[in-house]
Amino acid sequence: MQNFVFHNPTKILFGSNTIPAIGKETVLFGTKVLLVYGSAAIKKNGVYDQVLQSLTAAGAEITEHSGVLSNPVLSHVRKGIRLAKEKGCQVICAVGGGSVIDEAKAICAGATVEHDVWKFFTGKKSVKSPLPLTTVLTLAASGSEMNSGMVITNDETSQKFGFANRHLYPRTSILDPRATCSVPADYTAYGAVDAVAHVLEFYFTTEDPATPVQDRLMEGLVMNAMDSCNRVLTDLDDYQARADLMWTATLALNGLTGAGLGKVGFPMHMIEHSLSAFYNVPHGAGLSAVIPGWLRYQATQRPERFAQFSERVFDIREGSIQNKAAKGIEALTAWFTRVNSPTTITALAIPSEDIPKIAENAIALAKVWRMDNYDTTLIEAILQDCL
Amino acid sequence: MQNFVFHNPTKILFGSNTIPAIGKETVLFGTKVLLVYGSAAIKKNGVYDQVLQSLTAAGAEITEHSGVLSNPVLSHVRKGIRLAKEKGCQVICAVGGGSVIDEAKAICAGATVEHDVWKFFTGKKSVKSPLPLTTVLTLAASGSEMNSGMVITNDETSQKFGFANRHLYPRTSILDPRATCSVPADYTAYGAVDAVAHVLEFYFTTEDPATPVQDRLMEGLVMNAMDSCNRVLTDLDDYQARADLMWTATLALNGLTGAGLGKVGFPMHMIEHSLSAFYNVPHGAGLSAVIPGWLRYQATQRPERFAQFSERVFDIREGSIQNKAAKGIEALTAWFTRVNSPTTITALAIPSEDIPKIAENAIALAKVWRMDNYDTTLIEAILQDCL
Repeated sequence: MQNFVFHNPTKILFGSNTIPAIGKETVLFGTKVLLVYGSAAIKKNGVYDQVLQSLTAAGAEITEHSGVLSNPVLSHVRKGIRLAKEKGCQVICAVGGGSVIDEAKAICAGATVEHDVWKFFTGKKSVKSPLPLTTVLTLAASGSEMNSGMVITNDETSQKFGFANRHLYPRTSILDPRATCSVPADYTAYGAVDAVAHVLEFYFTTEDPATPVQDRLMEGLVMNAMDSCNRVLTDLDDYQARADLMWTATLALNGLTGAGLGKVGFPMHMIEHSLSAFYNVPHGAGLSAVIPGWLRYQATQRPERFAQFSERVFDIREGSIQNKAAKGIEALTAWFTRVNSPTTITALAIPSEDIPKIAENAIALAKVWRMDNYDTTLIEAILQDCL
Repeated sequence: MQNFVFHNPTKILFGSNTIPAIGKETVLFGTKVLLVYGSAAIKKNGVYDQVLQSLTAAGAEITEHSGVLSNPVLSHVRKGIRLAKEKGCQVICAVGGGSVIDEAKAICAGATVEHDVWKFFTGKKSVKSPLPLTTVLTLAASGSEMNSGMVITNDETSQKFGFANRHLYPRTSILDPRATCSVPADYTAYGAVDAVAHVLEFYFTTEDPATPVQDRLMEGLVMNAMDSCNRVLTDLDDYQARADLMWTATLALNGLTGAGLGKVGFPMHMIEHSLSAFYNVPHGAGLSAVIPGWLRYQATQRPERFAQFSERVFDIREGSIQNKAAKGIEALTAWFTRVNSPTTITALAIPSEDIPKIAENAIALAKVWRMDNYDTTLIEAILQDCL
């Protein structure tokens, strides 16, 4: 185990009928609230009404910033920052999935500085005193509700970049599994894939060969993400399954899995970000298209770790280390297929001729994220194996 | 899964050479520091010197409160409270294991009120604005370094009571596995037993029959507590094994395992507290003497849960549910034996004639903790099975 700092101060209110607490939790930080959300979905399922009622009852003056895209874009973030400054907002309340919370974090960071917010993403500036953030989560996927990171696409340059800063943990996040019951089967699956991907990134890229405490935690989360997603897909209104998936996705990227692992990379996200930047594919769908190919590459580098994963997650006990590793990758890919998430970039209608362009885009993010072991040749080779 | 609030704001600095940060972390809350510790152990292993040097360099004015007992007593807590008030201490720094941190929490709570501190333990008063606390952990066991609870023995009444309060999370806890390398084999094992017991209390008493996310987390922690303890006992200086055991024990009682489980009980601790109140046995030793008997009782109530535990933790896949449950309890008891922790109260030289007295003492705590399903008859029966 490597040295680490773990400090996650987000307060989680989890369970049914927790949304009415959002007003009280938000006005703790000021009554001038920027309410950030996406599309009409939260107006259909009643979450918007609940939030508005609670905020109003708590005495909030609400400014709305809606229309966040599912891959949130910089131009819309800048619009939110201008609005927050203009209205003197003291706190931001994000209602939605990871995209909405990510955009809200970027607005929190940008609303208290004079320079352009993109400088945080390129590492030229560091966040020091952002606006405080509260959230109501409506999609089990990104973990943004309990971490300090975000990802935004620069719609001028087609760069999908992300960063994290310790001042950007939400103060309070409300997780009512009921609010996710209206998420359709496909996006539920993409969310579960995203949660699995977050765990796999840590599990297979850790520089430390011996992290048994974190390993068991991560293996359990992958098993639970798959199992709870399967249960939801047989009954979209299964509260307990929705609850298990929701808490799993939160734990999958709240800092615990990575604490003690030392340096890790996010190679699957690095490649996928280029797919969604160019083709606007759902993030989870892009991930499951890239994961099998990347795993096959990585398994040649660290077969023992893959064998352990296969044994513990899929109960694959027979065969050589290489054989077990291969069977584990097959089993995971079979699960993607089961939940109807694409397992090739071909299934996303991405032509092989685009591979050099995708690799070129991905390498820019590799540089920002300091993943020096990747070059365009390697990324192209992985993408070829994802066709 | 049941509704829950999870909010654990403790900052953890984990790893080798982290102790020199204690000064800076502590004076954030004031320079008048009450330094709480136990015996000469931290003077022998160099931790005391490191802490003193760091605090002094950070500009702290230090008042020492030493001599905390391994089952900390109320009279000594009161002494610490008088000292903290007299010297106007602004922050408390605890250096030691769970006993030291527990006593420090009680002093934090008592130092800012006029009434006697025991009123917090009997539920007559509630903690509102205690002194802030920082800690340097020297024993992997109680989890007190990252939770808000504590246990103190009233040396006038022989009551070993505990409570938790959200204002009592340490602000910063420093976990350097190296600081635990001087803990001898027996106390290392008792610490691991304590961590295992914390998980078992939640796992086997949850009112919710379906908590798959928490189950995998808890099963992993039990496996890691046993495995890392075994590794430490073959080489007391094995840094990685010490690190795994330390982080496991912290995660075993930091709120995560219980989040979503609804009402849980602490029956094994309830009974053990009476053993250590009367006979001053090491807490972990008392626990392992009580656990097998309590598990045999509880397995008659909820055999399915025991069968799951046996399958996943001990890979016991054959036999009926009752058979698997019994084999799991045997396997756990065998591990206690392997690490030389007693598995009966007879091994602690506690005579059977004392059982009524112990049960009478335990039932007082059962009332405070609202464990209404226990009466003296049941506790006596369990203790009879622990002979």
